[in-house]
Amino acid sequence: MRHTSIFAFALVLGAAGAASAQSWQPPADSARCPSKWGASDDRGAANHMKPETVLRATRLIRTGQTFELGRELSMSMPIQATRTFELHTKRTSPPAGSNRRGSNEEIVLAEIGQVGTQFDTFAHQTIGDTIYNCFTVDEIATRNGFTRGGIEKIGSLITRGVLIDVAALKGVEMLPDSYEITVDDLRQALKRQQMTVQPGDALIVHTGWGKLWGKDNARYMRVNPGLGTAGAEWLVRQDPMLVGMDTAPVNVTPDPDPKLSNPVHQIMLVVNGIFLLESLRLDELAAARAYEFALVVQPLKLVGATGSTVAPTAIR
Amino acid sequence: MRHTSIFAFALVLGAAGAASAQSWQPPADSARCPSKWGASDDRGAANHMKPETVLRATRLIRTGQTFELGRELSMSMPIQATRTFELHTKRTSPPAGSNRRGSNEEIVLAEIGQVGTQFDTFAHQTIGDTIYNCFTVDEIATRNGFTRGGIEKIGSLITRGVLIDVAALKGVEMLPDSYEITVDDLRQALKRQQMTVQPGDALIVHTGWGKLWGKDNARYMRVNPGLGTAGAEWLVRQDPMLVGMDTAPVNVTPDPDPKLSNPVHQIMLVVNGIFLLESLRLDELAAARAYEFALVVQPLKLVGATGSTVAPTAIR
Amino acid sequence: MRHTSIFAFALVLGAAGAASAQSWQPPADSARCPSKWGASDDRGAANHMKPETVLRATRLIRTGQTFELGRELSMSMPIQATRTFELHTKRTSPPAGSNRRGSNEEIVLAEIGQVGTQFDTFAHQTIGDTIYNCFTVDEIATRNGFTRGGIEKIGSLITRGVLIDVAALKGVEMLPDSYEITVDDLRQALKRQQMTVQPGDALIVHTGWGKLWGKDNARYMRVNPGLGTAGAEWLVRQDPMLVGMDTAPVNVTPDPDPKLSNPVHQIMLVVNGIFLLESLRLDELAAARAYEFALVVQPLKLVGATGSTVAPTAIR
Amino acid sequence: MRHTSIFAFALVLGAAGAASAQSWQPPADSARCPSKWGASDDRGAANHMKPETVLRATRLIRTGQTFELGRELSMSMPIQATRTFELHTKRTSPPAGSNRRGSNEEIVLAEIGQVGTQFDTFAHQTIGDTIYNCFTVDEIATRNGFTRGGIEKIGSLITRGVLIDVAALKGVEMLPDSYEITVDDLRQALKRQQMTVQPGDALIVHTGWGKLWGKDNARYMRVNPGLGTAGAEWLVRQDPMLVGMDTAPVNVTPDPDPKLSNPVHQIMLVVNGIFLLESLRLDELAAARAYEFALVVQPLKLVGATGSTVAPTAIR
Repeated sequence: MRHTSIFAFALVLGAAGAASAQSWQPPADSARCPSKWGASDDRGAANHMKPETVLRATRLIRTGQTFELGRELSMSMPIQATRTFELHTKRTSPPAGSNRRGSNEEIVLAEIGQVGTQFDTFAHQTIGDTIYNCFTVDEIATRNGFTRGGIEKIGSLITRGVLIDVAALKGVEMLPDSYEITVDDLRQALKRQQMTVQPGDALIVHTGWGKLWGKDNARYMRVNPGLGTAGAEWLVRQDPMLVGMDTAPVNVTPDPDPKLSNPVHQIMLVVNGIFLLESLRLDELAAARAYEFALVVQPLKLVGATGSTVAPTAIR
Repeated sequence: MRHTSIFAFALVLGAAGAASAQSWQPPADSARCPSKWGASDDRGAANHMKPETVLRATRLIRTGQTFELGRELSMSMPIQATRTFELHTKRTSPPAGSNRRGSNEEIVLAEIGQVGTQFDTFAHQTIGDTIYNCFTVDEIATRNGFTRGGIEKIGSLITRGVLIDVAALKGVEMLPDSYEITVDDLRQALKRQQMTVQPGDALIVHTGWGKLWGKDNARYMRVNPGLGTAGAEWLVRQDPMLVGMDTAPVNVTPDPDPKLSNPVHQIMLVVNGIFLLESLRLDELAAARAYEFALVVQPLKLVGATGSTVAPTAIR
Repeated sequence: MRHTSIFAFALVLGAAGAASAQSWQPPADSARCPSKWGASDDRGAANHMKPETVLRATRLIRTGQTFELGRELSMSMPIQATRTFELHTKRTSPPAGSNRRGSNEEIVLAEIGQVGTQFDTFAHQTIGDTIYNCFTVDEIATRNGFTRGGIEKIGSLITRGVLIDVAALKGVEMLPDSYEITVDDLRQALKRQQMTVQPGDALIVHTGWGKLWGKDNARYMRVNPGLGTAGAEWLVRQDPMLVGMDTAPVNVTPDPDPKLSNPVHQIMLVVNGIFLLESLRLDELAAARAYEFALVVQPLKLVGATGSTVAPTAIR
Repeated sequence: MRHTSIFAFALVLGAAGAASAQSWQPPADSARCPSKWGASDDRGAANHMKPETVLRATRLIRTGQTFELGRELSMSMPIQATRTFELHTKRTSPPAGSNRRGSNEEIVLAEIGQVGTQFDTFAHQTIGDTIYNCFTVDEIATRNGFTRGGIEKIGSLITRGVLIDVAALKGVEMLPDSYEITVDDLRQALKRQQMTVQPGDALIVHTGWGKLWGKDNARYMRVNPGLGTAGAEWLVRQDPMLVGMDTAPVNVTPDPDPKLSNPVHQIMLVVNGIFLLESLRLDELAAARAYEFALVVQPLKLVGATGSTVAPTAIR
């Protein structure tokens, strides 16, 4: 995508920005369904994942340097009040055989799709009672997962990743508590990095908020800089495979519009079929100015789950 | 590694084969500790993971074709009797905000390190009361995981993968129930494929046993073809990063020596610091004769855990 | 209650029996709400529990003989396919102090309100979207339990228990697979035992089905003798505190009317505010012909839960 | 038991008190095994439970007044840092049948034997590596519970309960933070209440500490008044069925002897086979001066578990 096309988008955005003087409203079902990927689609922007997408990503690998973008999962990590992560070491059998083989294992109790660094998919979010592609929750929910929009439908994703370092643009280690990242911030950050984005990219926004992880968990979860509806819709127009950030909700918290509850989740997951990668560890990537890389993420194939805890890798 | 060197190993193996007339015995602590990676090492063969290893792998990517090697995780998958996998859809809050945002999630109860397609690391196995590098279980075990040999120490692995298709060598879809894969089988399969192996490779053995997954789970778990001690030790000599297979225990079940309890787990994890990838889905890889590829595996960073359920990818 | 009054009930029943030629239908909300215990009541028939009820029960204690009516909770007990019971021994800390005190404990994962011998309360069942007293599920449900109709509202119950031994009446060890216990069976069994029932009693029906517990779990869960709507409504007219049985659903399975899903649960819990005690162990009680006793049951005070696993005692 | 016999015990106690100038030491295995109830016994003081014990208790019931001694189990109750209690409302199936029957249930994740008001049995505690009757932990532990000393061996207990109100003796609502209850306190409290104790009684000590429950959970768990070794050994000499208290550990916290780790748990459970009832709710009982009552407690029959959450009742 050339700068000229970004400029064209900016014009469109102007209108959107004006519209947000009133509250953002989710589009009517008829305006969002069927999705652009078809009425029975469960994969949304994962449809960008094709051999040529993989090649476009892997051709960026020149040094073999890797960056771990996943957080450690432990009982002391930041976590939403309604979720849990517990790991209990099990007592197992005594060593067996003449070779005295002992075995250890652990039972884990967690919303394993929705803790730590996590990949959100479509069953996770609704507008009213429907998810992406207007499947009704009641029609797709079972006691043990969702028949549509589950994470097992996605598979491993390998695509070009682009870091959009808004913290660096602002010359700060960490954006302020409830800073809303504007469209201009995104555009300026890309310009500063001399990067353009392309359809199917993984767009990873660096806010610096991850510095609080494990240091001040309460603050990490309470507020955060992030996208508002305008920024989110601009990113949507870039046609990415996924949007990632070093915060838990991607949306700025609290949303500047007190009537809205995390509209960015709806814009990405419900309206546009774009995945979210939350609570990424981006410090090393930002420090290395690794603005372009192959991103690999392998969600667990939890049948019918709303997401997966993941440990993504950036390679360049 | 050239064929001549494989031949040289075969000579060594002859002696090992003869030795196995008596039971295989785990080496004394002094013979295995400190490990070749150092006395305080937790990463074993993951030390092979370097930029050049990554480049060696990613240079094999020519078409962008990917193969999903992970199984779906569901309550109807094969599982050991002592383990569980449960996913319960949670009741969550009603839609919130003027944007009527609803949210779904699920609680998962599982030995998430030891179910489905899984990556075993060192805290998982012992000889007597010590793991890899002779750390004592009592000294490293806590209520909530292990202080040494935990999966969070490993990180994402990207290396050259080599499929060793023993089923194809034998001209069968599936090796017989308790067939022990011999050193000769491994060598012949590689020769047939015109492949050699190199230090740091991921060696993936195809038995065809995965055809039973989801079809005859009881049989999948009850017996299986796999490695005996001779085959395992031969693989060790190739100095791989990990050994994978389309069976649950990698070891042939039952072991031909009734006194032994899965010695292959000890040979790999405890004695030699080599990881195991279990219950891989290899049918598509084998059907495509994809003998050489970039293998990417991203274990969850479960602090102190003995392994991780994974969804590895082969790319070529 | 005298026999004459039971006869009077039989006349009423005749009409009910005729009505059941069409399917039983749940009463309209207006016909069942507010409940006879008041519009804001959460305790239903537990309102029978008063000092004089306790005395009426404890005066029956003459020998001090006790009967355990609760089943052992283990991973091999009969359980509904949608529920689980797991107990994992935890690894705990090494012995501490100069007194070398070690500690063991276990983590339990279960629908602990709905496994084993269990006490059902009102949040457990609905007609459409409302429970007892017409509270709407959506209005009372939270992520972590129900604000109305939860088990913590009930407390310990101590009342006169009456065993109604229908198996003995029929001269069998166990009623047939899907035998519907008729009103006449209940009346004849009481007559044979020379017992009358009183408001506030715990009415415990012996079918003999419990002999399958731990012997043929699959059959225990698949079908069972039990109450139909006519028998249930007759029991309701006796104004009991609770109804218990040695089967999992109390309702005969399958219900003779294929259109109905366990109407007895609705009749007791939703329409009439009467508790259910399921999967009781009644063999010793029946063998001892202990037809009248003090029943004590202590549900766990699980805040907002739909029931509790219990270990009730009959004392005489 | 007459006062004279209590006096006799006091003489014995004098010696014990002097001995505690040095640290209390657990008795040698030979001094405590076999237990007085026999070498293969699992029930300890539950052997006191006989028909005459029941009658002795139930004869105290004169008014039918009941007291609930169990705490509500919720996610906001005081809990040890190493334990958890979670209750998640499950999504269940939509209403079924022409009768539109809906069903609710919840999954509970907890050390259900060791949270809230709890009944401790013998597998819970050790001296070194052995429990009550010198069974070795390694010999009795399995992945899923203990083969000896499990709670399923105990059954419902019904016995005379005696409240020993030490807070009332001292004229305080609550004993001070780490107050050690002395033998003299226990004797004086009984004398003040004009009560004597008898073998097989449930001895329930009121400290007032329960006032913090749900009000200041952190303080409730951090320190507490309670028994030291001298008080515990005096209670043992009364030959009770169980000892209960309105604190979590029964032992004073911290123990006055910094080298000791909760010796009262060992004295009761390991050395003498006497059960502990922890975190009782005693405020109403104390306010009513209900010093003598029938105590009923029904531990869940969790096979192989170290204890059970309970909801005991006092009846008088």
